Amino acid sequence: MGDGPLVIALDSSTSATKAVVVGDSGQVVASGSSPIELLTPGMDRYEHDPQEWWASTHIAISSALYSMSSSQKKRIKGICITHQRESFALVDENGKALRPAILWLDSRAGVEIKEYGSDEIHELSGKPADTTPAIYKMAWLKKHEPEELAEAAKVVDVHAYLAYQLVGKWVSAMGSADTLNLMDIEAQDYSDKLLEIAGVRRDQMAELARPTETIGTLKPELASEWGLNDDVVLIAGVGDGQAAGLGTNAIEEDVAYVNVGTSVVCGIHSKKFAYDPSYRTLLAGIPGQYVLEIVQNSGSVLLNWFRKELGDPALDGRIDPALDEAAAQVPLGSEGLLTVPYWNAVQSPYWEPFAKGIMVGFGSAHTRAHMYRSIMEGIAIELRENIRRVEKSTGREIRELRATGGGSRNLLWRQIFADATGKPIIVSGVDEVSAQGAAIMGMVGIGAFDDVAAAAEAMTTFTARTEPNMDTHERYGKLAEVQQEIYPKLEDIFEKINQI
Amino acid sequence: MGDGPLVIALDSSTSATKAVVVGDSGQVVASGSSPIELLTPGMDRYEHDPQEWWASTHIAISSALYSMSSSQKKRIKGICITHQRESFALVDENGKALRPAILWLDSRAGVEIKEYGSDEIHELSGKPADTTPAIYKMAWLKKHEPEELAEAAKVVDVHAYLAYQLVGKWVSAMGSADTLNLMDIEAQDYSDKLLEIAGVRRDQMAELARPTETIGTLKPELASEWGLNDDVVLIAGVGDGQAAGLGTNAIEEDVAYVNVGTSVVCGIHSKKFAYDPSYRTLLAGIPGQYVLEIVQNSGSVLLNWFRKELGDPALDGRIDPALDEAAAQVPLGSEGLLTVPYWNAVQSPYWEPFAKGIMVGFGSAHTRAHMYRSIMEGIAIELRENIRRVEKSTGREIRELRATGGGSRNLLWRQIFADATGKPIIVSGVDEVSAQGAAIMGMVGIGAFDDVAAAAEAMTTFTARTEPNMDTHERYGKLAEVQQEIYPKLEDIFEKINQI
Repeated sequence: MGDGPLVIALDSSTSATKAVVVGDSGQVVASGSSPIELLTPGMDRYEHDPQEWWASTHIAISSALYSMSSSQKKRIKGICITHQRESFALVDENGKALRPAILWLDSRAGVEIKEYGSDEIHELSGKPADTTPAIYKMAWLKKHEPEELAEAAKVVDVHAYLAYQLVGKWVSAMGSADTLNLMDIEAQDYSDKLLEIAGVRRDQMAELARPTETIGTLKPELASEWGLNDDVVLIAGVGDGQAAGLGTNAIEEDVAYVNVGTSVVCGIHSKKFAYDPSYRTLLAGIPGQYVLEIVQNSGSVLLNWFRKELGDPALDGRIDPALDEAAAQVPLGSEGLLTVPYWNAVQSPYWEPFAKGIMVGFGSAHTRAHMYRSIMEGIAIELRENIRRVEKSTGREIRELRATGGGSRNLLWRQIFADATGKPIIVSGVDEVSAQGAAIMGMVGIGAFDDVAAAAEAMTTFTARTEPNMDTHERYGKLAEVQQEIYPKLEDIFEKINQI
Repeated sequence: MGDGPLVIALDSSTSATKAVVVGDSGQVVASGSSPIELLTPGMDRYEHDPQEWWASTHIAISSALYSMSSSQKKRIKGICITHQRESFALVDENGKALRPAILWLDSRAGVEIKEYGSDEIHELSGKPADTTPAIYKMAWLKKHEPEELAEAAKVVDVHAYLAYQLVGKWVSAMGSADTLNLMDIEAQDYSDKLLEIAGVRRDQMAELARPTETIGTLKPELASEWGLNDDVVLIAGVGDGQAAGLGTNAIEEDVAYVNVGTSVVCGIHSKKFAYDPSYRTLLAGIPGQYVLEIVQNSGSVLLNWFRKELGDPALDGRIDPALDEAAAQVPLGSEGLLTVPYWNAVQSPYWEPFAKGIMVGFGSAHTRAHMYRSIMEGIAIELRENIRRVEKSTGREIRELRATGGGSRNLLWRQIFADATGKPIIVSGVDEVSAQGAAIMGMVGIGAFDDVAAAAEAMTTFTARTEPNMDTHERYGKLAEVQQEIYPKLEDIFEKINQI
């Protein structure tokens, strides 16, 4: 099993915390996980008890280490955190929560988004006005729970909360705190203007560590409890989206990662700051770099929805190979049925929370498989167009997509993505790409590699490669031209529908 | 069983000819039917062998009479024809067909519709440019088969073809020949201008009989074969749509009939000529009157499509009471999912053969039942709006709908129609309303009643009555306002989709 160094990569997500012990060739040595309860106290409200962030982390690490020998555990040199982004907690000076944490998917702050969201904030922070960033929800607290907000000793993201529990310091990573939307992104520091909108003070914010910087040493009592050396360090990590880019070795400026999961998220590293409605700009897991991130809310969640609601009831939403097979037989363009896949609102490039899904071109010859394929095509066409917008904004062509997420394992859909975008798609061989990204940063932090690029090269693997058919790509271009006309024509309908 | 007079009502449709022997209180004494083979020699081409019009009529009458006693048969005084409209045959002087008949649903003449269709023709004939009228298909023959067209001794509709077989005269009824779109409708005569576009001569056309006029006496050999009196007369009938209005006693100018069948057809009698994009204007089965007819191509065919393609595969498209039950539980407006039901193009009010279906507002909370209900609502909202356009065009309010067709027996849909239109819906107690309309005209023709209104009053029955909920009606009004915005915004998309 070798004797190289190991790191614990923590991925604290919306549903669970995973702890993965990883070696310097990227191999997973051990892993553990523990769920986090999602609280839904009201319509469109999503919260966590922050205490669970730590409790689940403690269980996940304990459970990963449980099967490891004492000598293996001595090889562990560092811990690195990746996590759900944009979520935040109000805590006192001892880390006790003053109220439940408000999560990225909480959409209570519609009014505040309309009140404060602006192009100016987009340019300053890199982030278009949207439901996910914390700033608008903090502004909501400023209005609805001003005392709790003012009294909080710290207003922290998941990274800083866990850093406090692990090493006793309120420190976040640059690319973690950045997702709160409180930073002047080019200055890489909090912005007074944004702090004022949020209603928080600079002294309430966590300190900021650069990616892969050492934050501190693991508390002796934890090291002792877990049987680790007393010099295990916490390395500054990054949000889970940016970490996925590292975990798929999508580091060069012409290689993008794409996570075809519940949503479709596609990011590209950039050495220069840029901003555009087609993406949001985040601080990367590579010091000094940015990630330009396309976000399409409705990814494989739509195919799951379709199978559950419109598929064979006998299958109850499960994978339906016959449906995939039939959809593969349907010609490109689904014989005139076009889908605008905004079932769960639209982020890139319109950032409109009221938007909904549209299907145009229904005829009597259309079958269940046509509708299924049309949804696949609609999502892929959106990605194609968003990638083209990113290319236009940066002036650089993207040559390859590194894919992860359940949707990337669907052969038909992957080919549709390749054909629609005109890019080859290489599928990650790693299941937990965000944890893998944290492991890569951890390895750099402990000095096992000179930089993130070298670590990513050594620690990532790939399985399948899907080439685009360029004739088909051209036909998708014509389809995209028409599909892209639909939403702008109907844009103003959705608020009216919403009012009925 | 009484000893009143009987008539044979013939309904020669696209799929079969039915012969129904009816008494003067509307009772059905006997019936028979025989199928007609639909020929589909090419994409969008639909034809019949005209010989089958007669063969199926002969079998249907023979089979209806088979079970009748000789004394019953002696009570038969007349025959009256209703039939599929707009279809036509080219025949020689002996009635032999020169080519297959071209049917109303044949859409080969797209180019000719664009070339010749005009507002002027609409005003002259009462008929908007559309795929169904014969004139454009005759113009197609003029270009593609000029010899056959020129050589035909007669160019005839189903009524004239059957009249020749029954009484030896090339005579059509006013409201039958009118559907060919060759008449100056107010003059109640063929128009030279329209004949020229069609490329046919006046001498090729059938003579025109007024509704309920006696055309001639049944050929002695047929009377003898069928065991009928030798003085049975053929009474001039009308096309099946107008006949349905008589068969549901929708005769007053404020009562409409609505046939919720494959398509939704809704007609209103009018003493004055009027024309408008929301309807086509036809000569009625009542002498000197018109029928203003709303045509919505996609009626229950859409619900059938949905159940077959997107329903439970185990049911294979059959009626699904659980789906209806679930759709009834979905709130009005299908929680923001709006349907423009143009799956099979749109007639009233846009008359656009390229149009297709649209669904707007999909969200993850929508279920199969939402989509099903939304289609029902979309069709009902279209009817609501088309009725409002008719009311505006005539200045008269419609107070009641007389419904027939399979869709009118669906309780949920009927309530949706009542609520959307704001009109009470009375369901016909007669299965074959077009045949009933022909029977009514036949009875007037043989002198059993003074006029059509009196006969219709005596010979029609109704079952259920559904009242609109006027609060719900108001909410449908708001929904309709938004739904009606969708198609005009996307109108120009469909030709582009068609070109891909």
